[in-house]
Amino acid sequence: MNYRMILYLVCYLLRIEAVCLVPALSISVFRGETGAVFGFGLTILLGLLLSLSTFFFRVKTREIGAREGFLCVALSWIAVSLIGALPFFFSGAIPNFVDCLFETVSGFTTTGASILTEIETMPMGLLYWRSFTHWLGGMGVLVFLLAVVPMGKGKNSLLHIMRAESPGPQVDKLVPRLQKSAKILYAIYIGMTLLQILFLLLGGMPFFDSLCTAFGTAGTGGFGIKNNSMAGYSPYLQTVCTIFMALFGVNFSIFYLLLLRQFSRVLHNQELRLYVLVMVLSIAVITVNTLPNFGGNPGEALHHVAFTVSSIMTTTGFSTVDFNLWPGFSKMLLVILMIFGACAGSTGGGIKSARVLLLFKAARRSVRRMLRPRSVTQVHMDGQLVDEDTIQGVYSYLSVYTLIAAISMLLIAVDEFSLETNITAVLACLNNIGPGMDLVGPMGNYASFSAFSKLILSFDMLVGRLEIFPMLILFLPQAWRRN
Amino acid sequence: MNYRMILYLVCYLLRIEAVCLVPALSISVFRGETGAVFGFGLTILLGLLLSLSTFFFRVKTREIGAREGFLCVALSWIAVSLIGALPFFFSGAIPNFVDCLFETVSGFTTTGASILTEIETMPMGLLYWRSFTHWLGGMGVLVFLLAVVPMGKGKNSLLHIMRAESPGPQVDKLVPRLQKSAKILYAIYIGMTLLQILFLLLGGMPFFDSLCTAFGTAGTGGFGIKNNSMAGYSPYLQTVCTIFMALFGVNFSIFYLLLLRQFSRVLHNQELRLYVLVMVLSIAVITVNTLPNFGGNPGEALHHVAFTVSSIMTTTGFSTVDFNLWPGFSKMLLVILMIFGACAGSTGGGIKSARVLLLFKAARRSVRRMLRPRSVTQVHMDGQLVDEDTIQGVYSYLSVYTLIAAISMLLIAVDEFSLETNITAVLACLNNIGPGMDLVGPMGNYASFSAFSKLILSFDMLVGRLEIFPMLILFLPQAWRRN
Repeated sequence: MNYRMILYLVCYLLRIEAVCLVPALSISVFRGETGAVFGFGLTILLGLLLSLSTFFFRVKTREIGAREGFLCVALSWIAVSLIGALPFFFSGAIPNFVDCLFETVSGFTTTGASILTEIETMPMGLLYWRSFTHWLGGMGVLVFLLAVVPMGKGKNSLLHIMRAESPGPQVDKLVPRLQKSAKILYAIYIGMTLLQILFLLLGGMPFFDSLCTAFGTAGTGGFGIKNNSMAGYSPYLQTVCTIFMALFGVNFSIFYLLLLRQFSRVLHNQELRLYVLVMVLSIAVITVNTLPNFGGNPGEALHHVAFTVSSIMTTTGFSTVDFNLWPGFSKMLLVILMIFGACAGSTGGGIKSARVLLLFKAARRSVRRMLRPRSVTQVHMDGQLVDEDTIQGVYSYLSVYTLIAAISMLLIAVDEFSLETNITAVLACLNNIGPGMDLVGPMGNYASFSAFSKLILSFDMLVGRLEIFPMLILFLPQAWRRN
Repeated sequence: MNYRMILYLVCYLLRIEAVCLVPALSISVFRGETGAVFGFGLTILLGLLLSLSTFFFRVKTREIGAREGFLCVALSWIAVSLIGALPFFFSGAIPNFVDCLFETVSGFTTTGASILTEIETMPMGLLYWRSFTHWLGGMGVLVFLLAVVPMGKGKNSLLHIMRAESPGPQVDKLVPRLQKSAKILYAIYIGMTLLQILFLLLGGMPFFDSLCTAFGTAGTGGFGIKNNSMAGYSPYLQTVCTIFMALFGVNFSIFYLLLLRQFSRVLHNQELRLYVLVMVLSIAVITVNTLPNFGGNPGEALHHVAFTVSSIMTTTGFSTVDFNLWPGFSKMLLVILMIFGACAGSTGGGIKSARVLLLFKAARRSVRRMLRPRSVTQVHMDGQLVDEDTIQGVYSYLSVYTLIAAISMLLIAVDEFSLETNITAVLACLNNIGPGMDLVGPMGNYASFSAFSKLILSFDMLVGRLEIFPMLILFLPQAWRRN
């Protein structure tokens, strides 16, 4: 176990985080928000001091194996969240540290679940930082590191880290060199974010709002800067968000293929097809079902339903209406979409389109094998053979996912809220969505949960963002053994 | 595809069903229940007529393959349910045929979900038949057939049918000869039922009540003959049921081992250990949690909680109190126990202890493999190697289970009941429990669902009892192809 290299990477990451805090500090200085200035200043100082500890030890080898990759990713996310929570705490804006941590984990994991009941009175620097955590967490904090840190000859090291952090059943290598892949991904990410900011500015949204909204959309996070989320913005601005939310839920390699003009590969991508199909069908069905809620106005219904489905399915969590008041059928479908999630290799959460597709195909194969026990059948996706390890991985993902969901629901049930609240709160956190139903519906929040439940839900958010295994491995003694 | 043999077996089964209806007819004759006498008489006549069709064709070969086994089991259960529903319909006791079918499927699948709002005024013959369907369905209608029908040299034929109907990830062969296994299983089943009747009679329960209660317990069904289920009986009688419900949730091969005095194999059985552990822990935790509901009386709380946990976990569904009024934590735990279920090879439903155990072990192996990608690891259970096909089977079981649950919840949500009602109604039917929460809680019933939802839930009950695949295969064109 290469503890030194792990520590080195974590420290490097804290240094980057300190730098990322500077714009937020500047905003607070500019706005004269004394508490926030103090909070950011102290945090930056502390982050830099901690990261300087790298000077006191020498990394013998930069090699990183599978175990180190998982451990490194889990520890990095926890460290970054702990430090990222400090400005909220030091500034006094959120008095309870567990609340600060919940809010920050919710930010980095792009969940968007909040314990704040009153958002608009928060210092602007803190609001900016809150939204920026979405943007950082969306693409992955370590993928960013990969793009910039020299790793020497440790080619596999990069792969192990990327495998542990990237969402989806298989790792996409856009180009043979992984570091270049990371750079391309970030370039697409930055480009699309800028494009959204542009469209929002054209619709007359204030610059600060555009920035924060784009961060929340790009990371599929969902922290708003208004008490009523996106309800107060114009239909044009809401539509821009609907479209960009849906786009950020698409596998980024699709955009790369588009840049390379490989249109037929895009059109035949099975995951993308399923994602679009489920989204379009859900919008159509819910629009019909909720028509009475919009006074029978189909245009109005379609507008808000498209926004909501795009928001829930990509696990963003912005809202324009209180979907908790919708009919039972629509609510049930939304809960299922929460679990379904976005595409693999996007910033969205959930089980993900590719996994659902693989589960379908593997189940079909099982049934076939039952009918003809001696037949040999294989699973294909996009014309390529899917190896057995990937299928096993998807299966164990689903079973551990179910297990963690059940245990979490049980643990937070101690707070004695309704069954609907318990179930949807866990699903909303585990799938990095944000709002659930009932108490945690789009007009509610997570403030009333106990500190214990907030920690459980924070753990779930990390489990969801890191796709279970890095977080689970923290609890295995084997993972920590020297070798 | 050996359609003739399938038809032959289905007809044979209808003949047995007609015979099984005779005691119910006698009760109705004895009690002078004119409508019921007419209903039973007409049904018996119809069943016999249909079954006589075997004389019009010759079964060329008695061989049955894997496909035929599944198809045969699915079709038999549907045929037996359709005929079994007729007495309710012909007698006029339940005017709507979908309701009759729901009630009968609920009986045979040992679910115990009811559409009746008023039970005590039903003719006694029908009440007897309703409870007897539990007893027949509990051990499996075809296993019964296996014990009595001469199959010639088709040894594998028996295995294919047994595999399709028996609950659990692996088929237990108690003794090398399958027909003898089926006989032993039925002997244990009859013996334990008689024992329970004896204990109930000793507690002063009327003979008719003892019979029906024992049928409901043995099949882990849960149809009561009183409007308030078991609430009106004495604590002694309730305790007898608590114990027998728990016993009927145990793998029957355990009882066989006990008869053979192989005590150490019983003590080391991993599934049994998990089952007992989960049950005892749940009773302890819920007793503490519900103490205020019983006025702080720990004895009273323990008594009712033990009954409820035993009833829910074995998927029986009897009740002594309205657990829908219990605190959120207890309700959440009960919902999880609903899914967990009883042991494989018992009459109980749910995912089953053995599968949960295998999922745990397989997940642990996946994590280990992630840490050391090149290591070869195997899954063991009770000291025996579990083959990869079994593990794949458990995995695909879980994924198809999840899929069917999600689709069913969505479809019945059209009726616009609460999320809690939709989720627990599907779980209660899919796991063959009976009562869920909210509208379908122990004091509620399924009467208010639409005919469409009742059919969906009936399908779910069959899916749960036959462990998914036989029912699923009905929809596959490959299953029906001649060869």
